[in-house]
Amino acid sequence: MKIYVDALHQAKDSDSIKWQVGRIDLKIYDAAMGPYPARVRIALAEKNMQSQVEFVPVDLLQGEHKAAPFREKNYSGTLPLLELDDGTYIAECTAITQYLDTLDGAPTLTGITPVEQGLIHMMNKRAELEFLDAISTYFHHATPGLGPDVERFQNRDWGLYQRDKALAGMRYFDGIFQRRAFVACDFFSMADITVIGGLIFAGYLDVTIPAECEALASWYAKMQERASVKNRITMSDPPSS
Amino acid sequence: MKIYVDALHQAKDSDSIKWQVGRIDLKIYDAAMGPYPARVRIALAEKNMQSQVEFVPVDLLQGEHKAAPFREKNYSGTLPLLELDDGTYIAECTAITQYLDTLDGAPTLTGITPVEQGLIHMMNKRAELEFLDAISTYFHHATPGLGPDVERFQNRDWGLYQRDKALAGMRYFDGIFQRRAFVACDFFSMADITVIGGLIFAGYLDVTIPAECEALASWYAKMQERASVKNRITMSDPPSS
Repeated sequence: MKIYVDALHQAKDSDSIKWQVGRIDLKIYDAAMGPYPARVRIALAEKNMQSQVEFVPVDLLQGEHKAAPFREKNYSGTLPLLELDDGTYIAECTAITQYLDTLDGAPTLTGITPVEQGLIHMMNKRAELEFLDAISTYFHHATPGLGPDVERFQNRDWGLYQRDKALAGMRYFDGIFQRRAFVACDFFSMADITVIGGLIFAGYLDVTIPAECEALASWYAKMQERASVKNRITMSDPPSS
Repeated sequence: MKIYVDALHQAKDSDSIKWQVGRIDLKIYDAAMGPYPARVRIALAEKNMQSQVEFVPVDLLQGEHKAAPFREKNYSGTLPLLELDDGTYIAECTAITQYLDTLDGAPTLTGITPVEQGLIHMMNKRAELEFLDAISTYFHHATPGLGPDVERFQNRDWGLYQRDKALAGMRYFDGIFQRRAFVACDFFSMADITVIGGLIFAGYLDVTIPAECEALASWYAKMQERASVKNRITMSDPPSS
């Protein structure tokens, strides 16, 4: 449960940033099958930090994430949630990924140059807005979602509208993959993970990749071969004796 | 229209990041009164870059941002949009702010340490989700919004639900300001700007700060005195002769 990082304290010179050696405990509240938890699990594996984190399962079907004790930790009632060793909570996949990725002073998922950072954050947000969040809204509003005890307010028309938006988003990302290998830059980034999250969520539902989106389908087939994506669910299994 | 920055190219050593001197042209497509454009205008002023940017007005009431020529530049059809001198487009306020803030190698709005970056991105997203985006959805779905030619699909129930969510968000941030001076850290950041954006948008509508939210109201009064907030609309005026 310990992570050794070149981080914690930073001493800033005029033109250099140095991260001093520190030691941090990480705890992640999530649900192994969840598409949003998948985003942080994939990021952890890409950063090779997966064995150093304690996972705390949260019962989505019982609405544990919407109940008061959890919302004390994360007002928005969403998974995953990161807890640091000093009791600080960091919610939201983008924020958690930004934290994890910069911890060792060598970001690989969120970009180094300002342009890389800008493009990755743009495409990450676009992947949420036009695809993953749209699928999630469809699930929670136009399907039984997590069940009547959890889905206290549903708006079916809005859910169906968002499903159509997600399908348009698939066509948009198909166009991207006709031209390049990754979503934001010429390397795998947080934005790719968010599109993968959308495809994982779509795969649980009746939202299939349109037949003509061959570039998107073949990109996803390739991504599913990445160890970080392939092993995301078993990552939190207790070690077999 | 020129910005001189210690950026553009980066040379990375084992423990230091050096930004070399470069020169970048910036163009921002926006609308002076818009709450989302305000976020980037405030960020520009906080970074003291306001006089070095060319602003290109986009006609929201004519739906110029939803028409094909603009959506070629930004698929989501949202303002503001940043164009770099090489024709690269960066959309989404968070992404634009991340770009602008890291351009001089001395971020002040998005955090330096991993924890600062994580907390700022979390609270920035929370301010969108629970407040600014909720107000925006209310405006576009449960009021005439930008008019019938632009608002082609409205869902009144969803808009009203989001208005209530925004009011709850105001109460949440009021609680924050009862305990501390800024949204995410002990300094002014991107997350504060996003809450300000929500309060600007609410101010255009009938969504007033609940009387009991005194900490929020007095925080906003203080924020409105910041030059970056006060001068955001006139920032793009042509210089008087």
